[in-house]
Amino acid sequence: MILTNATVATMEAGYGLIEEAAVVIEGDRIAWVGPMAALPASPAPRTDLGGRLVTPGLIDCHTHLVFAHNRAAEFEMRLTGASYEEIARAGGGILSTVRATRAASEEALLAQALPRVDQMLSEGITCIEVKSGYGLDLETELRMLRVARRIAVLRPVAIRTTFLGAHAIAPEYAGRADDYITEQVLPALHRAHAEGLVDAVDGFCEGIAFTPDQIARVFAAARDLGLPVKLHAEQLSNLQGAALAARHGALSADHLEWLDETGARAMAEAGTVAVILPGAFYTLRETRLPPIDLLRRHGVPMAVATDCNPGTAPMTSLCLAMNMACTLFRMTPEETLAGTTRHAATALGLTETGRIAPGFRADLAIWQARHPAELSWRIGPTPLHSRIFGGRLDA
Amino acid sequence: MILTNATVATMEAGYGLIEEAAVVIEGDRIAWVGPMAALPASPAPRTDLGGRLVTPGLIDCHTHLVFAHNRAAEFEMRLTGASYEEIARAGGGILSTVRATRAASEEALLAQALPRVDQMLSEGITCIEVKSGYGLDLETELRMLRVARRIAVLRPVAIRTTFLGAHAIAPEYAGRADDYITEQVLPALHRAHAEGLVDAVDGFCEGIAFTPDQIARVFAAARDLGLPVKLHAEQLSNLQGAALAARHGALSADHLEWLDETGARAMAEAGTVAVILPGAFYTLRETRLPPIDLLRRHGVPMAVATDCNPGTAPMTSLCLAMNMACTLFRMTPEETLAGTTRHAATALGLTETGRIAPGFRADLAIWQARHPAELSWRIGPTPLHSRIFGGRLDA
Ligand SMILES: [Zn+2]
Ligand SMILES: [Zn+2]
Repeated sequence: MILTNATVATMEAGYGLIEEAAVVIEGDRIAWVGPMAALPASPAPRTDLGGRLVTPGLIDCHTHLVFAHNRAAEFEMRLTGASYEEIARAGGGILSTVRATRAASEEALLAQALPRVDQMLSEGITCIEVKSGYGLDLETELRMLRVARRIAVLRPVAIRTTFLGAHAIAPEYAGRADDYITEQVLPALHRAHAEGLVDAVDGFCEGIAFTPDQIARVFAAARDLGLPVKLHAEQLSNLQGAALAARHGALSADHLEWLDETGARAMAEAGTVAVILPGAFYTLRETRLPPIDLLRRHGVPMAVATDCNPGTAPMTSLCLAMNMACTLFRMTPEETLAGTTRHAATALGLTETGRIAPGFRADLAIWQARHPAELSWRIGPTPLHSRIFGGRLDA
Repeated sequence: MILTNATVATMEAGYGLIEEAAVVIEGDRIAWVGPMAALPASPAPRTDLGGRLVTPGLIDCHTHLVFAHNRAAEFEMRLTGASYEEIARAGGGILSTVRATRAASEEALLAQALPRVDQMLSEGITCIEVKSGYGLDLETELRMLRVARRIAVLRPVAIRTTFLGAHAIAPEYAGRADDYITEQVLPALHRAHAEGLVDAVDGFCEGIAFTPDQIARVFAAARDLGLPVKLHAEQLSNLQGAALAARHGALSADHLEWLDETGARAMAEAGTVAVILPGAFYTLRETRLPPIDLLRRHGVPMAVATDCNPGTAPMTSLCLAMNMACTLFRMTPEETLAGTTRHAATALGLTETGRIAPGFRADLAIWQARHPAELSWRIGPTPLHSRIFGGRLDA
């Protein structure tokens, strides 16, 4: 297949924009990209894109999209003036999602996740990271990861699974975080790994979750299994989580509103990607901005993701997250698109996707747009023309 | 047609929620709504909604969705550090949209507007207000309004047109706002009215646009023509625009971040609706919140709209505007849904839409949801099951 008359953002060094470009796809790989004038002769069928923009398929590198129930009632209670205590007494907060997710069958979880996946595909996404972390017990954590794997069978999308047993302390272990890690997180991690369900290991390092020492125990187990790590770090305070993650060679540290220079330097040295999550910042009405300039100065690659979750970011639109990263955090449209392609791939340890270059996977988004800045300019999705996954055009 | 097994938010007094409800539709009208147990016997065909939520079709009561070109380049320039002057020199700002819109044919404007309309329909909208105001000359203002009227012919949606010649001072009249009103706005208004293109008259009362005296001249002309008025007021400063609008019996005053108690009282007395526009607040990163509590205290009805426009709110999702009104302005989900149904209808002078009650138009949205709070809880659209416009189900 040859795409012709395209405006291609290769995402090699900035946009890497090529006007009047062609892309040659062979099997599931990109064979050639360049100006149409230089297109090698080929009998392959051509598709004229009429000048439309082609980007790498978008990659949402941080989601919690497998969950049961929704938290609309809690959202409404808070806005009608209910106190934190009243909401907790009514069963609100993350533990309400844990309860509902534990009670849901694999089929039910899958049925609730697929509409969210389909919304993402309709916006040009070709790769989604999916975390566990609403089970907080062995069976449910595994069930969530199995659901994540099944998504990739049922839909034309790549799924990267992340084990997040250290997301919150299970209610049965309130006040006993170390026991929770010993008795639930580490056994569940081993079992999930044995079943081939884990691509990476994550944790939540925060006053309301786990200490750096507790996270280090989880990371040590990941290292023993040969699994890469990532970390929810410096979202609400600074526990030096980013530096901890960097010391463990983490793929990414995520959120980072409270990141300091020590952390940024450690991330730069380790090649750890900063995953910027404006949806949670927006929902929580935070005022402390992630230090984008500091990350730029140290050359830390920045990714942008939805953080899709029922509490702090009930959203599936990665383009909206890009707009929020521009509007709220003053990232540039070029940075946000790199953050959902090239750097998002790095944040997942993927080396053959996220750019349009020979040898890379033919995962592409074709847009009803002419310039890549449009993807961040709109508040919400830019209309998609079509999507190519593994060299195959979506019906 | 009878819809059964529905969760109906009639929007009569709050949500007006009826569980296990039925809606009887005859022709383009609602004939009956109530609990299924009380459903009158009827041979009409029944559609079982499986418990899904039914609301009035959503009404977007403030948009500028007919325009040419986009402002992505300007958005990108600003984020890469260009000064206001540099952007102006590069042709940015509202006048860039005016230039592009003047240069666009009626067909071109229509072709660019329809995808935005289609996005809105896919989110359960059944009525859209469309303003002129990117022509600032007679021919283009009329062309915009003709395009708005054609949308209603081409798509199953009601369109309400608003003449907004007093949106900005035409570049030819820089420094001569009064002459612009005399020579362009008033003649264009008369001509557009004569062609049946005007349902209401609007203006922009602000230091960067028109003074209250200038707006009063436009409103006087509207009164002479028997046309209702509305006003962009108190967005960036307080010129007592809301009180001015109320004195003219305005349908609505819109934006209102700087509204004071005098203005709120005047609006309450005149029955003028407050149209809340969080998209522009978000894009401009404003910090002055509209006085929601003041509006509540005075019993001013509040509507919520997208403000869809290429500069300060390039968005088509009314559900996202509802989420923003909750998240940024602390409105409740019940208030935002009233603001896109019952009160949005009032803001457009419509008395037979925006509620589910006998005699009202059968304009309905059927959602993949169980509770109306979900529509505001998601950051972005709630998946739609189907839409009924004038008693007809969308294919
Ligand atoms: Zn997260
Ligand atoms: Zn407006």
